[in-house]
Amino acid sequence: MSCSSVWANCTIRSLPPTSPSWQVSGQLRSTHESSTSPAFGLALFCRARRCGPAGLTRQYLSRHSQLGTILVAYQHRYLDGSPLALPIGKVVCIGRNYLDHIRELNNAVPETPILFMKPATALAGLDEAIRLPAGRGECHHEVELAVLVDRELRNADTDTARTAVAGYGIALDLTLRDLQNDLKKKGHPWETAKAFDGACPLSTFLHPEALPEPQATELALRVNGELRQQGNTRQMMVGIFELMAYISTHFTLQPGDVVLTGTPSGVGPLASGDVLTLSLAGHDFSARVA
Amino acid sequence: MSCSSVWANCTIRSLPPTSPSWQVSGQLRSTHESSTSPAFGLALFCRARRCGPAGLTRQYLSRHSQLGTILVAYQHRYLDGSPLALPIGKVVCIGRNYLDHIRELNNAVPETPILFMKPATALAGLDEAIRLPAGRGECHHEVELAVLVDRELRNADTDTARTAVAGYGIALDLTLRDLQNDLKKKGHPWETAKAFDGACPLSTFLHPEALPEPQATELALRVNGELRQQGNTRQMMVGIFELMAYISTHFTLQPGDVVLTGTPSGVGPLASGDVLTLSLAGHDFSARVA
Repeated sequence: MSCSSVWANCTIRSLPPTSPSWQVSGQLRSTHESSTSPAFGLALFCRARRCGPAGLTRQYLSRHSQLGTILVAYQHRYLDGSPLALPIGKVVCIGRNYLDHIRELNNAVPETPILFMKPATALAGLDEAIRLPAGRGECHHEVELAVLVDRELRNADTDTARTAVAGYGIALDLTLRDLQNDLKKKGHPWETAKAFDGACPLSTFLHPEALPEPQATELALRVNGELRQQGNTRQMMVGIFELMAYISTHFTLQPGDVVLTGTPSGVGPLASGDVLTLSLAGHDFSARVA
Repeated sequence: MSCSSVWANCTIRSLPPTSPSWQVSGQLRSTHESSTSPAFGLALFCRARRCGPAGLTRQYLSRHSQLGTILVAYQHRYLDGSPLALPIGKVVCIGRNYLDHIRELNNAVPETPILFMKPATALAGLDEAIRLPAGRGECHHEVELAVLVDRELRNADTDTARTAVAGYGIALDLTLRDLQNDLKKKGHPWETAKAFDGACPLSTFLHPEALPEPQATELALRVNGELRQQGNTRQMMVGIFELMAYISTHFTLQPGDVVLTGTPSGVGPLASGDVLTLSLAGHDFSARVA
């Protein structure tokens, strides 16, 4: 007998009649493996594991979910694929944190960090094909260092922020540029340009010990082999931990939240079929536009 | 022996050594009551119930949480106080949905709905004192009909949206107006003015059957006994279900998400000590500014 394993983002209202009367919902996660009580384990945990022929686990989940939608969804993971015991939270981003990017878009240097957000529904693993919203104009790549938060930060100082990092990854802050330009002109909020489903493709995470100098780290994006964006986190105007601390004076950061730290110059449109390589500190991550 | 019950928003990394090797995190919720295996039940569920002297449950949770933070946090509830089996999601809002409010702020009538978001950390029950961010200028009340979503909506039509309502409540879309005006002028995103901690004080929910005509419903806000805002949902330019459907073409709505449907005229600043009465369809909800 082999063991099959399914990560699922699911809402399950009730279990089959043979099980105890549970009512469970939410994004749950556990590494629990129950061989004696599979029904119990399967319904409670997004990672459902069951000893038996592969595929059975997902079938079981599908059959017993009232909503019938079991998705193998985004999950924070380390570089080696092992999952992080953190929920999937919001993404807090900074606009204009690299001077060369500010200049390329003819923007003013901001007096205070420009903060915006993407919800959990914006997160997607780089192993999923990137889906560009149709009919909404150019969708630009903005490659960024991503920081995964592992404890609550509220009005934190930079030293506390430094100790609250679960890992470093590399992400795309996908931006509907035409739409964003229109929103900026009208003084409207940016969410429709920045927070759409899948607007934050995100790599697996390096353990903080594997990136001892996060503030002196190379990042780059190649599209179809051509270098489009390249920078060093040394060039940030607001440093990583200073940014996390600043964010925490506006919004409480919770375990599982992600902070995006700004993009260097070279942003540009993506097209269907593009093959991407995101590089962080010598690690290459591949992605593909659907 | 009486039974005590605690609702907690908690992250628990491990259970005491006597329990199975669980690793659990996230916002969990269940009505499970385990009398035979309290450790198991307590660690898994935000509603931990334990037969014994009152207070024991929270003590138990605190003792066994590695993070040590167990908060009785915001939880979606019905009018009678009973909790809804839904996680706590994002809040999606529409700007300028009542014509009289557009006029009072000298805004243009938008061609398409103006959408923005508040994260889960913005949610707070009306029974908690409202905390205004200090030193960030005027904080305005915007009273709104709130819709609690109970299933996933993506590219939904209005009929599907209509069936996805878990309840109707009344909320304040708190807005740092001076800051928002500045952000609008600069073309910056609105999050720091709209998405701060506690920026969405929210009532308990009326079951949909208790509000058969949500699109013809009175809502009002009194501050220290004085009527400040009054409207009828009939005056919305984009109807409730049309709005939900429209939102779902930009962002997937998930179970537990909340949709705010816009504010009628009369917005204005709140001050420390203000006593508020929010009224929805004849139901009054009290709140207080800290």
